[in-house]
Formats: sequence, structure tokens, C-alpha cells
Amino acid sequence: MYLLEGPHLLEEAVFSANDMLSAIVIDEGFHMPRKWPTEDIEVYQVTHKIFTELSQTETPQGIIGICRMVRPSVSIGLGRYLLVDGVQDPGNMGTLIRTADAFGLDAVFLGKGCVDGYNSKTLRSGQGSHFHLPIVHRDLFSVAAEMKRLGVPLYGSSLQGGDMTKTDVTQPYFGLVVGNEGQGASPELLAEMDREVRIPMAGRAESLNVAVAAGILLYWLQSEGLALER
Amino acid sequence: MYLLEGPHLLEEAVFSANDMLSAIVIDEGFHMPRKWPTEDIEVYQVTHKIFTELSQTETPQGIIGICRMVRPSVSIGLGRYLLVDGVQDPGNMGTLIRTADAFGLDAVFLGKGCVDGYNSKTLRSGQGSHFHLPIVHRDLFSVAAEMKRLGVPLYGSSLQGGDMTKTDVTQPYFGLVVGNEGQGASPELLAEMDREVRIPMAGRAESLNVAVAAGILLYWLQSEGLALER
Repeated sequence: MYLLEGPHLLEEAVFSANDMLSAIVIDEGFHMPRKWPTEDIEVYQVTHKIFTELSQTETPQGIIGICRMVRPSVSIGLGRYLLVDGVQDPGNMGTLIRTADAFGLDAVFLGKGCVDGYNSKTLRSGQGSHFHLPIVHRDLFSVAAEMKRLGVPLYGSSLQGGDMTKTDVTQPYFGLVVGNEGQGASPELLAEMDREVRIPMAGRAESLNVAVAAGILLYWLQSEGLALER
Repeated sequence: MYLLEGPHLLEEAVFSANDMLSAIVIDEGFHMPRKWPTEDIEVYQVTHKIFTELSQTETPQGIIGICRMVRPSVSIGLGRYLLVDGVQDPGNMGTLIRTADAFGLDAVFLGKGCVDGYNSKTLRSGQGSHFHLPIVHRDLFSVAAEMKRLGVPLYGSSLQGGDMTKTDVTQPYFGLVVGNEGQGASPELLAEMDREVRIPMAGRAESLNVAVAAGILLYWLQSEGLALER
């Protein structure tokens, strides 16, 4: 089980993952929006003192959800996937999940050394995207092997890779690997990729933040995929 | 003055902004890399207890720089600029500065409601990019007016904007406005733009993290600019 805080996240959960919510706790004075389908969820109103005790944030927002942790199993197919290798910062992880959701990916796989996908900070920076696509902790080598067997092309983000704008994209589906904030993806995992790709940058910073890099790479893969359909 | 922590940031400062460093404090047992040009900088070695007191991080990394706050004035020309409106999270701000640096921008302007560009968390997520380009707190309306006078096209990131891939880019220089984490850029500032642009997204998340959005927009403006030169 885990806690979900604030009206924005709760709204996403109530509408997109109602059956995962086992209870809602509200602060005295907080009014639950009428349109929310909460008939089947137990709602507890508590005193402000108790509410502040329960909240894990500095500025509690009046509502907390108690959620069942669902660890989905995903059957990999001809789809679009993000593989996250050793990303430790919960804010980065949440932003990666939000970005994967924005580009309509089918799942996010979290490998060895990753922060928990349901960490409270990860949930906060995920902005509700956790309820839109499966977040799966799994060994990335087995995920990559399965994709390879199906013919899903594997791209690895790497500063040593080829310029992505000069990389041929021939399929609308893919697995994209991004890695640890300091070291990037592990060399062993990159060795399993069909291509290592690099974002061309005219400036001086050595590298981009992992979520920014993922955003640019997913945007690029989306545009190349759309171009294939034309 | 402000503190700069850890060998990575110090290395950037020592090589890129040596004259801004007024002193360096090192923990007992920390060895300063020999190749660093620190002849003109006072270096203090202190006990581990004092060092831990001074450090603002949970896991101190043995070296702290004391830097002079330089508030640069920038004369706006035919260049490439990021204008940041009301971004409050220091991590996001640092990532924006790092991203602007990666794409070779000429300056970052921070408007009303923005977190301090030299906040310790901003410096940390900026990864040394603070020493590569000017970070200027200034009224964004006057910045935009000056760009307009020079004929620098102004783009505003907005969920209500036109699809960026269908937007004509006719100049290699620009001012790009990104805004607050919740509300985006202010409507008054967006009204001053030549174009409001939106990143096309196939998925379900309503919006992207501000630094991810800036990364994709700057990547797009860089590619369009390169295409013009061909």
C-alpha cells in the first residue's frame, strides 16, 4: 500500500484507477468534489492535527488516498517502451514516467539500481501518469532479450552513440534505454542495443538531465514513427 | 556570495570562472586535484566537524567554494535566449539552465516569481552550466520588448499554442518563453509573443515537466535553425 497526496493526484486515481483506491482520508473542512465517483471507497474525515501527522508533505493539501500497490505484469509485444537503468533520483523517475505517458508509451520498465517507482516523491513528480501506464520493476536484460526476439528495435541513449538525426528509424515501435544520472546506462546493457544514439547539442554542457534527454529522444522517435505512417 | 559544493561544480568554477571564486574550503583528508589553477585562490583546510557544519548537503563531498555573486548585465542582440516565467522549483530551474547551456544559448532571463538562479539546489541541478552562460534576473516584458525591436522572433510554450512542427521558423535566433509548473507562462507575457507553440504528444499526460518541454522546444529550434543554414 502507499499514500497518494493532494487533489490533483487523487483526481487521476479516482477516475483512472478507482479499484486501486482502498480509502480516502480528508482534513476537516476539505470538501470532496461532488463529481468524483467515490461511492465504493471508504472516506474518513479526521482532525487537522491527525491529518498533518499523516501527511508526508510540508504543505498538506487536505486529501490523502490509501492505494493498493499493483505490481503489473506486462506481456511485451510490438509496442513502445521505456527502459530505465539505475535512475536514483525520485524526481527524475517521476518525470520520466510522466514523459513516457505524454508520448503514449505502452509501459515503463525499471531495472536494477532504480528508485522505487511508487516512492512518494516519484508519485508527486509523476503527476498522475502512474495511473495511465504500467510501471514494472524487472530485469532489463530479460526485457531486452524478449524485445529482440520479437524484432522490436532497441535504442540506447549514450554520449558515445551516433547522432540520432542520422539514425534510420524503420519501425514505429521501439525500446528506449536511458540510464543513471552520473554514469548513464550500464555498458553491458548498452551492448545489447541495436543502436546507441546521442542528441546533437551545440553548447557546452556535457550532458542533459536524464528526463530531458528521454523527452527529446521520445519526441524524435514519435516524429520518425509518424513519418513512417505517411 | 554563495557556496558551491562538490568536486564537479568546483572543477567547472575553477576552470570557467576562476575570478569569481574567492576561497575554497576543504575537509581534512581531501586532496585538491593538482591540475586545478588555484594559485590565486585562498584555500582553507578545516576539521571534518567544521566542514560538516558548513556543508548544506546531506552527504558532503569534501570541498566547498565561496563564490562572488555576479549579476551580469547582458546586452541583447541577434541571439538565442530562454525566458523563464515564474518557475518555482529549484531543481527545475537548474535543469533549465543546464539545458539552455547544452543547446548553446546566449543567456537565460529569470522573470517575476522565479526561484533564485543561485539557490544551492539550482546550482546543484545546473551541474556547472551557471559558469557557461549569463543567468539574469530581469523583467521579462522589457526583455521581450527589446527582442521585438531587434526583430528576434518570440515563441511562447503553451498548451493552447499551435503544433510546433507546423510552425514556420524563419530565423536562426529566438527568444523562447517557458512558464510556471502549474499555470504555465502568464497570459500577459504570452500576448507579447509572435507565436504560441505546443509540443505534439500522442499520450495521456496533460503536460510535460517544464524542463523537459524546454528541452524539446530548444532541440526543435536548433534543428530548424540548422536547416535554415543549409
